Amino acid sequence: MAEWVTVCEVGPRDGLQMSRSRMATAAKVRWIKALAAAGLPEIEVGSFVPPRLIPQMADTAEVVQATRSLPCVIVALAPNLRGAQAAAAAGARRVSIPVSVSEGHSRANTNRGTMDQVAEVRRVVAWAKAEAPGLGIEAACSTAFGCSIDGVVPEAAVVRVAAALAEAGVDSLALADTVGYAHPAQIRSVVRAVRAEVGATMDGLHLHDTMGLGLANALAGLEEGVRNFDASLAGLGGCPFAPGASGNVVTEDLVFMLESMGFRTGVNLGLLVAARALLHDGLPDEALHGALARAGLPRTFVAAGRAAA
Amino acid sequence: MAEWVTVCEVGPRDGLQMSRSRMATAAKVRWIKALAAAGLPEIEVGSFVPPRLIPQMADTAEVVQATRSLPCVIVALAPNLRGAQAAAAAGARRVSIPVSVSEGHSRANTNRGTMDQVAEVRRVVAWAKAEAPGLGIEAACSTAFGCSIDGVVPEAAVVRVAAALAEAGVDSLALADTVGYAHPAQIRSVVRAVRAEVGATMDGLHLHDTMGLGLANALAGLEEGVRNFDASLAGLGGCPFAPGASGNVVTEDLVFMLESMGFRTGVNLGLLVAARALLHDGLPDEALHGALARAGLPRTFVAAGRAAA
Repeated sequence: MAEWVTVCEVGPRDGLQMSRSRMATAAKVRWIKALAAAGLPEIEVGSFVPPRLIPQMADTAEVVQATRSLPCVIVALAPNLRGAQAAAAAGARRVSIPVSVSEGHSRANTNRGTMDQVAEVRRVVAWAKAEAPGLGIEAACSTAFGCSIDGVVPEAAVVRVAAALAEAGVDSLALADTVGYAHPAQIRSVVRAVRAEVGATMDGLHLHDTMGLGLANALAGLEEGVRNFDASLAGLGGCPFAPGASGNVVTEDLVFMLESMGFRTGVNLGLLVAARALLHDGLPDEALHGALARAGLPRTFVAAGRAAA
Repeated sequence: MAEWVTVCEVGPRDGLQMSRSRMATAAKVRWIKALAAAGLPEIEVGSFVPPRLIPQMADTAEVVQATRSLPCVIVALAPNLRGAQAAAAAGARRVSIPVSVSEGHSRANTNRGTMDQVAEVRRVVAWAKAEAPGLGIEAACSTAFGCSIDGVVPEAAVVRVAAALAEAGVDSLALADTVGYAHPAQIRSVVRAVRAEVGATMDGLHLHDTMGLGLANALAGLEEGVRNFDASLAGLGGCPFAPGASGNVVTEDLVFMLESMGFRTGVNLGLLVAARALLHDGLPDEALHGALARAGLPRTFVAAGRAAA
């Protein structure tokens, strides 16, 4: 039996927060429904942040409400307890809380130092245990592989923050290459060091393709045993508070790589590529990236799902 | 001490043979000199094929003569004995002879079946032993990971062709993903199978980035112990006789990945990226690709050479 890898589509959140124009709520919902219909098991649909900071995310509650009954896990980013509460009220199944390992990005992104943000995660976990027992709490260690503000991020710092978050009681922990500085040997080394400290609680990677290493880094993570990857349709994405950040690893190219290698993702590549049209309809000025959409499937391709069938 | 990886720039050959316009000889020579000045240890500068088939390569003898004294290995592609003799006469240090594993591509590319082309390699080796003892003979197994004409290429066929070429007495053997169909697990599997048969004579990979997997495939090869990689500045490339083939893995992005991971390449990335300007001057209509040139170096980057110094 082929092994499963979970791909979480973060385009509606990470992909849209940097866009010059805003995608209308109805267009977002249509797009997210198409992503779910393509078989993506998890979709991060928005973030509960102040609309004056990221106006593209102002309708996140509405988007969660409109998609909460889809047959996939609806995730929302929340930088604090208030955001997590709003996510739960709207019907999100999981919140993802960013905790920057580098102080510079932490202050720029959440207006708090790293350990103050860990304390906020602790408050979210305590509240969720009491008030929202069905809500998954994920912490994402941002700038875990380098920071365009602070520069090098020591591996020991990543381990320290990850350990504090595991101690805080999150359900899962991801490492984010927020600005796309990671290389494959570093991915292996940091994943190994963090897992030595917190075990399989660390089970996700969020990768950006700034240097063209997104898929190579995913491969390195895969070979270290990571089985959860964020990605963004057509490679949209970037953090407005991380200078130089560019798009995420391209969802359809990642799924193609995984299925080619014999991992099952549950995703129908034809429907996934077709969902790019809805993204384009909702955001016609944005450049779409990706190799699969340009080249089409190799004639030798056999999806893991089909090979196993 | 950091380990060395050899990057062979194939842009002047593979990169130009598909270009709509022709680069002038003087422009080729200027560009190749800039590539050598950037520290590339090997450059494939052209191919000795009939000009009516690939007019962009008509001046290869002249290009070899003008670059033969550069401090790098000057390589030329030759599909047959006549081409190898012309390459040696012009002053090339190595010839690379393509041998397609798939019959369909073999006939389209060299007008011979696979085993007839192996016989031609045998003739080249016999001639070189007698007449051109300083000339390195490399065979490149084209379509080793799939073919856009014939479809799936069985691993056993690759092993059979590689074994015949090793038996023919070539100095080195490379596996080429001519149309960019390979995935990382396949790279590992085929490299391992071929090396089990022919040992370290197989020491090179020629990868195309059709599906966005070029660097991930290079990483897989690297992890299997391969230490020689072809690449093309700005990702130009493609085979005119392989429908659907697109550009090679981007040299500057590959070097960036290798140096980041602690492998020494001898290449100065600043000079390498600057050489794109000469490529653009000589071929202004061609689209240049690559992440490093777009994003610049991460502020955390330390080249392996500098780290070791």
